[in-house]
Amino acid sequence: MAYVIGLMSGTSLDGIDVALVDIQGTGYDSQVKLLDFMTLPFPQSVRDEIMDSLSLERSNVQVICSLNFKLGELFADAVEAICKQNQLDFANISVIGSHGQTIYHQPQSEGAYVASTLQIGEPAVIAYRTNTTVISNFRTMDMAAGGQGAPLVPYTELIMYREQEKSRLLQNIGGIGNVTVIPKAAQLQDVYAFDTGPGNMIIDELCRVLFDTAYDQDGKWAAQGVVDEALLTQCMSIEYMQLQPPKSTGRELFGKQFVEKIIRENTHLSPYDLLATMTMFTASSIAYHCKNYIFPTLQVDEVIIGGGGSYNKTLLSMLQQQLGNTCRVITQEDVGLSSEAKEAVAFALLAHETLHRLPSNVPTATGAREPVILGNVTYPPRGV
Amino acid sequence: MAYVIGLMSGTSLDGIDVALVDIQGTGYDSQVKLLDFMTLPFPQSVRDEIMDSLSLERSNVQVICSLNFKLGELFADAVEAICKQNQLDFANISVIGSHGQTIYHQPQSEGAYVASTLQIGEPAVIAYRTNTTVISNFRTMDMAAGGQGAPLVPYTELIMYREQEKSRLLQNIGGIGNVTVIPKAAQLQDVYAFDTGPGNMIIDELCRVLFDTAYDQDGKWAAQGVVDEALLTQCMSIEYMQLQPPKSTGRELFGKQFVEKIIRENTHLSPYDLLATMTMFTASSIAYHCKNYIFPTLQVDEVIIGGGGSYNKTLLSMLQQQLGNTCRVITQEDVGLSSEAKEAVAFALLAHETLHRLPSNVPTATGAREPVILGNVTYPPRGV
Repeated sequence: MAYVIGLMSGTSLDGIDVALVDIQGTGYDSQVKLLDFMTLPFPQSVRDEIMDSLSLERSNVQVICSLNFKLGELFADAVEAICKQNQLDFANISVIGSHGQTIYHQPQSEGAYVASTLQIGEPAVIAYRTNTTVISNFRTMDMAAGGQGAPLVPYTELIMYREQEKSRLLQNIGGIGNVTVIPKAAQLQDVYAFDTGPGNMIIDELCRVLFDTAYDQDGKWAAQGVVDEALLTQCMSIEYMQLQPPKSTGRELFGKQFVEKIIRENTHLSPYDLLATMTMFTASSIAYHCKNYIFPTLQVDEVIIGGGGSYNKTLLSMLQQQLGNTCRVITQEDVGLSSEAKEAVAFALLAHETLHRLPSNVPTATGAREPVILGNVTYPPRGV
Repeated sequence: MAYVIGLMSGTSLDGIDVALVDIQGTGYDSQVKLLDFMTLPFPQSVRDEIMDSLSLERSNVQVICSLNFKLGELFADAVEAICKQNQLDFANISVIGSHGQTIYHQPQSEGAYVASTLQIGEPAVIAYRTNTTVISNFRTMDMAAGGQGAPLVPYTELIMYREQEKSRLLQNIGGIGNVTVIPKAAQLQDVYAFDTGPGNMIIDELCRVLFDTAYDQDGKWAAQGVVDEALLTQCMSIEYMQLQPPKSTGRELFGKQFVEKIIRENTHLSPYDLLATMTMFTASSIAYHCKNYIFPTLQVDEVIIGGGGSYNKTLLSMLQQQLGNTCRVITQEDVGLSSEAKEAVAFALLAHETLHRLPSNVPTATGAREPVILGNVTYPPRGV
């Protein structure tokens, strides 16, 4: 029994996700079982400091130097909390995988700035507090190998979701939608991933502006509206759809400005109709990518939905409707996994692989020249 | 035969020091032999970027993120250069120890800022280019253990300079003077270190202002002056002398302001006399610390001088004169070692120890609660 802990702190700055995982075997033979998962919210002062460290105007070397150590303490607190809750000694943990907090990501060089990435949350602090091996800084080696350092989840997806007899798509619906393609009996080089366009980003921003809430719970408001076909056609004609994968997108394309324009130009539509149309646009953009870039070369059995969007029932039924009956649309929970724990579990598994000196980037997903062993190892400081 | 490479980039921002070292054995049994040493100057644009990243006003997260990767490439260049010069394949190198460039060091917490340290020069880049194990970030674990993360050289000094029958002082004369005490047959807990006060800092600043040169070559100008006893007595009465070790000082006490005041208040003295007096003050402050804080409890056989000050013959003879004939004043080169390569050699040895999972901080020197294994390990990305 190898207990492994995964730590993740995402761009939403909600807090620290910590997963306790049991991993047997390595590589394709790994059996990964989630035992427990917690989220420890950041104190407001720390959230403010992270916001400062992300800002080109307010960040400086002293803020970053100090926050690196401060986050290390909070990550160590998270390890302590999950061990206590499960009555485990640190000595039972074989390795801790800590993604850290991304404070900058420069996917390509730009003027004097070279392609680079920066995660903080000092691993020495975590290792000292727990006297356990810590693996951190997973993205840097992929970038050293010419990759974009992201996405790193496809490896875990391959290991955890591959089946001998079924081809699967893992469609994540976070802010952005992204898909990982896992053909049956896939090897590393068979897996690929790309962004499908909007995830919850447009829906959430519309809810904020029109309904003063953070998101459309269960998709109940979208279910009350009627899709406007003209607006849907207009949205589907954007250039991103036509770009050949691999491709990626971010806040710039489907963010506030996009939503403001939609609202301004469609005052004849009710808030419910607008939301229904944008929910359909999100579903259609996913379906479009499946039909045009995946289905022509692969018979897909299941589309497994993860991320916050998996709780939007209207979005899910629209997607099933768009895809037809050729493949089943199900959620991560339907296959016994947890959507919210996914990334923390991923870094537990990546740490486990690095501990065994196995590569775990997916070059077809990141663009790296080759598979490489990810991360830095910090040994238990008092030995084992 | 274990070839090890050490990389260091100091606060002077001159460039990258790289040492090729042969290390046999581990711990007290280590035999360390310097095979080659080079300094690769930084391009001016990189020096400017480092200056920016050190500045609270000009640093930001993007500058630091990019520079971390850029310096990684330059460190990898340095490894390539020394391997080429010695016709060595990377496969012959067991490990690379990279100190990196310190861009911030917060020895104690201060307001919202916690005790922390930040070195950059991405190890993944070095490891990828060389497919060799890299150990880096040596200071963080000592700080996690409650230490100041500095000085780290005492461990190397213990291993390389300890003798069964002789007690030695290693007096480094860089900007600041600092001494490491290595009693005969010393164990880790017998070694201690502290700052003795000014090193070359006052002498160099006087040379800059009075002679428009960077330093007093061989001490030739000081040799032409006469020591002013009143000024010497005044300097020796500063509070720092009376403080009980362990203690440390920096630019704030013996920097530009100190020198400006000395010049302003002593216009009756010739430049040569001023320089002679300040050279004697530097020698006397070292001798004072020996006589008051070391000799009462230890019979010292040799004082071994390192750093730039070891080339100042006037300073050395003044020091011998102050110490009397009870112990010999010699230089690192006299015992077959290199003053300029010292720090790069230190990080080669520290990496070698970490590779063998041995602790290598000196708690009596850093203030750490206990000995700990230093640094992060980045594995050869394509395996071995």
